[in-house]
Amino acid sequence: MANQIEITDRNRVRRLPERGVYDREQVYAILDSSFLCHVGFIQDGQPFVIPTNYGRRNDEVLCHGSAASRMMKHLAQGNAACITVTLVDGLVLARSGFHSSINYRSVVVFGHGHEITDPAEKNDALYAISENICPGRWRDIRGPSPQELKGTTVVRVPIESASAKIRTGPPKDDEEDYALPMWAGVLPLHTAAGELVRDPRLAPAVPVPDYLQQYISKHRG
Amino acid sequence: MANQIEITDRNRVRRLPERGVYDREQVYAILDSSFLCHVGFIQDGQPFVIPTNYGRRNDEVLCHGSAASRMMKHLAQGNAACITVTLVDGLVLARSGFHSSINYRSVVVFGHGHEITDPAEKNDALYAISENICPGRWRDIRGPSPQELKGTTVVRVPIESASAKIRTGPPKDDEEDYALPMWAGVLPLHTAAGELVRDPRLAPAVPVPDYLQQYISKHRG
Repeated sequence: MANQIEITDRNRVRRLPERGVYDREQVYAILDSSFLCHVGFIQDGQPFVIPTNYGRRNDEVLCHGSAASRMMKHLAQGNAACITVTLVDGLVLARSGFHSSINYRSVVVFGHGHEITDPAEKNDALYAISENICPGRWRDIRGPSPQELKGTTVVRVPIESASAKIRTGPPKDDEEDYALPMWAGVLPLHTAAGELVRDPRLAPAVPVPDYLQQYISKHRG
Repeated sequence: MANQIEITDRNRVRRLPERGVYDREQVYAILDSSFLCHVGFIQDGQPFVIPTNYGRRNDEVLCHGSAASRMMKHLAQGNAACITVTLVDGLVLARSGFHSSINYRSVVVFGHGHEITDPAEKNDALYAISENICPGRWRDIRGPSPQELKGTTVVRVPIESASAKIRTGPPKDDEEDYALPMWAGVLPLHTAAGELVRDPRLAPAVPVPDYLQQYISKHRG
């Protein structure tokens, strides 16, 4: 059970525990399927939830932001954070409101921030975040200058505890409701890429790189 | 300025303040464009961020969940919450990592939960949440039984304070980087509907209702 995350009071899935997943590889797979997380933290007794990009490296979530950002300062100071990632896979259209649901994959991570200060390590972490958003892009573009690295706060959050929650499949209706006459099933949803919008100042001759073509192929409507 | 949300220390957009939006109608428009929020709350000094569905009615966010849910109990007890909604509109592919970004619309709402206990009011709130997820569905399906209403906790969170943050448009590169040879621009992203998956126990004769056809038309790849 080396790959099982320990179940404690903090990460235990209470509601619909059959949807709870504590397998480390499944938690990683969900984290690696998104680039948007919602970071929760406490400041002056007030909960805040801020959306941001991230990457994963081994057993750590990596975040970055302006050195002037309240959230990044707070994380860099080692405060507690809850980082949640949610992928919506579809609307579950049951025959009753009560059993209507969403197919989804979510991960809740608990940890504390640790600032990465070494410029080379910062660069490596930014690379990991960039690859998580758009694989291949980083090697194509201008890397960070020393000044830009200085203005960017990079934080790693070791995964102290985590759990995933997954719902898949058709609705589960009450037995007597299956005879009702309305449509029932799943309306799948996914993130789709649209047509690329070239920068107005981009020279007409510049071709679309392979990694973007691949991204679009992977995210077809 | 009646439609402007008061700017305080809690909701002020600090990073890139030019992206901050305090116009109530714009905040509502973003809330009405999603059905997934991330609710932040504090329990035993630990921040939690849990994804859930919601609806909006006037100046309130409505949430529901099992009466056994930790989050719903916590909200029903009147504790402070931060409710965040984020829509990702595209990858902003700049010529440097530093200026690479995301086009997005997000709203951060601050408030305290108030439990709705009257069954008729609960039913109305559940209707609003359902309409926000899939307009037209509620009228088509079986409504909640008294027992189901009893097992569902419904909470309204009056919007005490809120702000939106919006980024649109092409990358904003450093002047000297515009001469670099790589592709730059925006890769638009949106939520797309796939092919409907009929419930295995659905009678073959049941047609797809108009409101689902409309939903799919609105969410074409």
